[in-house]
This record gives sequence, C-alpha cells and structure tokens, in this order.
Amino acid sequence: MSAAFAIHAECTRSHARAGLIETRHGAIETPAFMPVGTQASVKALAPRELLSAGAQCVLANTYHLWQRPGADVVRGAGGLHHFMGWQGPILTDSGGFQVLSLRHLCRIDERGAAFRSHLDGEERTLTPELAMEVQAGLESDIAMALDVCPPYPCRSLELLEATERTVRWARRSLASGHGPGQAVFGIVQGGIDTELRRRAASALAAMEFDGYGIGGLSIGEQREETWPALEAAVAALPPDRPRYLMGVGAPGDVLKAVARGVDLFDCVLPTRLGRNGTVLTRQGSLNLHRPGLASRTTPLEADCDCAACTEFSTGYLHHLVRAGEDLGLRLASLHNIRFLIRLVAEARRAICEGEFDEMLRRVGGGPHHAAILSGASVS
Amino acid sequence: MSAAFAIHAECTRSHARAGLIETRHGAIETPAFMPVGTQASVKALAPRELLSAGAQCVLANTYHLWQRPGADVVRGAGGLHHFMGWQGPILTDSGGFQVLSLRHLCRIDERGAAFRSHLDGEERTLTPELAMEVQAGLESDIAMALDVCPPYPCRSLELLEATERTVRWARRSLASGHGPGQAVFGIVQGGIDTELRRRAASALAAMEFDGYGIGGLSIGEQREETWPALEAAVAALPPDRPRYLMGVGAPGDVLKAVARGVDLFDCVLPTRLGRNGTVLTRQGSLNLHRPGLASRTTPLEADCDCAACTEFSTGYLHHLVRAGEDLGLRLASLHNIRFLIRLVAEARRAICEGEFDEMLRRVGGGPHHAAILSGASVS
Repeated sequence: MSAAFAIHAECTRSHARAGLIETRHGAIETPAFMPVGTQASVKALAPRELLSAGAQCVLANTYHLWQRPGADVVRGAGGLHHFMGWQGPILTDSGGFQVLSLRHLCRIDERGAAFRSHLDGEERTLTPELAMEVQAGLESDIAMALDVCPPYPCRSLELLEATERTVRWARRSLASGHGPGQAVFGIVQGGIDTELRRRAASALAAMEFDGYGIGGLSIGEQREETWPALEAAVAALPPDRPRYLMGVGAPGDVLKAVARGVDLFDCVLPTRLGRNGTVLTRQGSLNLHRPGLASRTTPLEADCDCAACTEFSTGYLHHLVRAGEDLGLRLASLHNIRFLIRLVAEARRAICEGEFDEMLRRVGGGPHHAAILSGASVS
Repeated sequence: MSAAFAIHAECTRSHARAGLIETRHGAIETPAFMPVGTQASVKALAPRELLSAGAQCVLANTYHLWQRPGADVVRGAGGLHHFMGWQGPILTDSGGFQVLSLRHLCRIDERGAAFRSHLDGEERTLTPELAMEVQAGLESDIAMALDVCPPYPCRSLELLEATERTVRWARRSLASGHGPGQAVFGIVQGGIDTELRRRAASALAAMEFDGYGIGGLSIGEQREETWPALEAAVAALPPDRPRYLMGVGAPGDVLKAVARGVDLFDCVLPTRLGRNGTVLTRQGSLNLHRPGLASRTTPLEADCDCAACTEFSTGYLHHLVRAGEDLGLRLASLHNIRFLIRLVAEARRAICEGEFDEMLRRVGGGPHHAAILSGASVS
C-alpha cells in the first residue's frame, strides 16, 4: 500500500473518525478539506496562500491536464509538484466527472470514453489504463481510478451499467499499475440506490485500493437521498482505508458526512462562491455585494486567521467587489477555503477529544445555530 | 513643507539625481516607480505583495474614491492607509486625468469640472477646493492639485486655456488648505508646447508646493515631442523639489526621463500588460500566450527576485494564461511591477555611484541591448 492510513480517534456516537494519511509528499490529517486546482491552479490563489490557509493536499484534474498542457510537459517540468509549485500532497481526479459533464459530446463504451476535445476538437479516448498512465506521468500522490459518473436523475439500466462498469474499470486501473509510491483510490458509484452502492462498495473493497472515493453524490438529489446512499457505501468499505466524498463542500454537508465516516472532501464551492463575492461564515453565507456593508470596519469573522480577516475590513472587501477589483474575489476565495479547513480541523480536534457529538449540536443544533447546517444566508 | 526632499547624488552628465522624500508614512527613495491602485487596490495584488516587490509608495485616485466608496467611508475606516491595508506612503491623484477621459460627458468652467457620475448618473462638480477636501479626508501623504489635462492633439486656444486654468486652480488648491502633514504637489500642463510648459512651470515654481507633477505627456504624442516639453518644464521647476512624471512607465521612457531629472513615476502599464499576459524583461516584452513556451522550465528572468520568477517557471505561467487562470495574470502583474521597481532602483544605485551614464549605455546603447529603450518585443 502506497498511502498508509492510521486512525487516531473514533467518535462513539457517530461514525466520525480522526486519522492520518501518509503520502510521499507529507501527511494529511483527516478529516481534511482539499482545495481544487483543476488546471494545476486553485483559482486565483498561489500555493503559499494555500499553505497559509492550512491546506494539506490539493486536487488537480487528469482530464484537463492531459489535454493542456499535456502529461509530457508536466513530466518535463519535474512532475506536477514542481510544475505548480505545491510541495504538499496532490490528489489527481481521473476525469470521470468531466466525462459526465461532457456526456452529450462523448461516447462511452467498455473500452473507455471517446470525445472531441473542447480545446482543439480532436477525437480522444480516455481509458482506465490511459488515466493511470497520465497520472503516473503527473506524479500525483493519490491517483483516482477512472469512473463512469451517472447523472441525476438516471434511468435504472443506465445507473446499473455505469455502476458496474466503474467496478470493472477499477479492476483494470489497479491491474495497469501506477507511479512509484503513488496511492490509488477506487471510486464507488451507484447513484441514490443503496443496494447498488452496497454492491459496488463491496466489490471495490475486495480489491487492494489504498482508499475509496464515493462519487456521484450532491449532483442534484435531495439530501434525504444522499445520506442513505453514503451510509450504504461506507458500511461496505474497509474501515482501515480513507473514504473520500467527492465534490461535497457545503459546510453543513461536510459535518454530516464526517459524522457518517468520511475522511476527505474536495469542492469548488469555496472558490466559486468567492469569485461571486460570497463568503462563508458561521452565521451563514454573506454576499459581499449587499448594500449596507460599506462602513463595516470589522473583519468577516472576528476569530478567523486568514489574510482577508486579519488584514482587511468587511467594508473594504465590499468596496473591492462593488468596484470589480479582483483582489476582493481572491480574498473571498481564500477566506472560504480557510473557513472549510478550520471547520474540518475543529471537527478533528472534537473527535480526538470525544466532543464531536457536542460540536455537531453546538454548530448545527440550536435554532440560532442552524445556519451552518442549513446553508442559510445571513439576513 | 510637509514632504522633505533631500538630494543624495546627482549625475554629472545628465540631470539624473538620487533623492529621498520623507512623508508621514515613511520615506521614498527616488527615482521611484509607484504602482497604481486607482480604486484603493493595485489590480489583483495585495499590499503585502507590493511590499515584497519593493513598492515604496502607491497611488490612489481622488475622483474614483470620492464617488465610491466616498471620502466619508474612507475617513470612517481610519483613512486610506487603514482602509486598504497599505501602511507606506500614498499619493492621491486629483482626478484631472479622469476628467480628460470623460471630457465629452463633462463641462469644465473656471469653477470646476461638472459631470454625470458614471456610477449613478448624478450630476457632480469637482472643484480644486473639493479635490483638496476629499484628499484631506482620504489622508493621503501626497495630494495633487486638480488640473485640466488637455488632450493630444489639441487646438492652441484650448491648450492655452487648460494650461493657464491649471495654474489658477493650483493657486486655489494651495489656498484651500490640506490635511495635517499632507504634502501638496502642483501639476504642470502645457502639452508639447515648450514655451507653455516653461511658463506654467515658472508660475507654479513661484508657489509653495512640496513637489511638482508633470502631466499630459505620453498621451499619444511622439517621443521627439515628449522630451523637449519635459525638459522645458524641468528647467523651470525648483531643483530642490521632487518632480513626478505622471502616467509614464514604459521602461525606456522611465530611464530617459530619469536622465532628464524626473524623480517619481506612476503607470498602469505593468498591471495592464500583466492582465493581458505580457511580461517585461530586459530583452523586451514577452507575450506569455506565445506558442513554444510550454516546456520552458526557466523563470521569466533568472536574476529577478519576484514571486513569479522565484517560485514558478515560464512554462507554468504560459500554461496559466493559456488556461485562463487568474493566477497567471496576477503573477505577470507582480513581475512587471517588480521589473520597474528594480529598474529605477538600479538607476538610483548607478546615480549614487556615478555610473548612471554607463548604465544608460549598457541598458539602451548597444545594438543587442536596445530592446529596453525601444520597447521591442522578444522575437
């Protein structure tokens, strides 16, 4: 196994756990939130800022980097860490989710996903083997097996086919090998069908993956459908391997998923919200364009240690987004990433100290504290 | 006088000089290049990055900040330094250049410039007195008198009127007072008419300004017209006050103006070029979109100490701009600002060591080194 995983503490009243994943480029304390750098750049932010925000691992995307600049260019630059100037762990997503977004332009068969490149119009085929080869060239620390991410909603037959094909592709990915010291995670699909989730997870659990992604959730379904599907997957996965809930980053969802045994998260939410001028706070999300903020001399959050909160006032950030200044969106993105990293770090401490149950109640239980779990906006 | 100016060294073969301006928020070693933060933000860059790039003083714009967020908001935030998080010297331009850009929407008479706001459509009048009052509220270290910047080309009568009105407005600006400890600079207009420049400079020299801006150059005229106009102004200004050539920042122009006795520069060029993906180098400007850069693992400039050059390769910056990633434009802007600051710092050292003449020859003299003075692109 290329990514050792140790569990430091477990919650007695939920499935939450605190752990440590070791990779070639350092350790990741879990639960962890990983900022997304699809094209080898977390939007508008420099690696040193991610480090100062407490990021332990960043994501990059195999599908995107394969097409531009190409794995050969990244390899020639000494691998993805050198290329993008991030020396910590990197997880590369395989491209299954991108294939989903492009599914009307693409043809998936048992061999792989064939599509016209959105860059040069050329026909390309991404296979499970090629995705592993590209990720080996990128030299990421954690590679994801290529999956077929079914849409939501999805007809039963299509869902069944995507879920089972993802299992077969996972087997082919493992068989095709990986880069030296590179960890490989399989991906559990199955939509909101708990029985399909259980079967997919069981099948993947029987293979020697270093960890497991749980994909295809939070793509439009109701949360009452999300949690049973997640629970079914987690129950069938080996407890001694990290579990990664892909693409989920709403603060309330993150805490609820931690309670269900998830260790890793990624999401474009903090940077996407930031680029729209919206910031996450413990009182809910706040749109910085909102009138009435001009004279607010206090920071976004008094106890936040990010550069946006320690160096600037809410009034100044409001001015920046109203004036169309990029610095405002950049600072909002940084704050949002720091917000999620602080949230999971607090969850980790609470798990280690046996107080996670209490934290869940404190943050999301009372009528005045429900904002973070409900995702409400500050009124 | 609110901004003491000491001359440390003078070039024997040109009018270049090395000096020190002292302000309430620290000293400025001259010649100096000042990054432009029109709306209280140097585009895409944080104050700590400007500091790391060696910026000593930043610009902000009276006209813009008066309209948004308003001087009262900035005053309520504790002044512009607190508001924007920049603790070094700040120079506020008065708005004359903005009135020029909006002259088809605006009515200038002896009292001031009346125009419809581009933000809310309301009619507003900026007078010399109001410009000083707003700048006192902003608490900038150096305030500029409101001027009338004539366009280029310009009919004789309009040029004469703008130049003489600028002198009368300068007198009114001085008479209307300034913030405590705030320095006030007058502005010399006169277009490319050397006699008008001389007369305007002489008239302003007779008033007790702390320094002098030279405006209305590099706005479309040929450089053979620029330099005589600049020389005529400089010759009539008091040698013991700083001279600030407004809006000029092309590397070759900066060195040539230093040789003609200019101490201060500002220009949006480095950030504007950066946002277009173009970087300044000693070999000329380089468009980062250019094919053939993908595999370049060396930095933009081997001897540059900016974050773009010390942390990233040219190939990665090429990837960022091609992929539309904001980080690329941000790093290009930072490099360009650092480039100009290094250039004037090198000029200062050369002046102090009696080698400025030699520097001019080395950087701009030989056939292979002409790029920086001619502004050529790297082929």
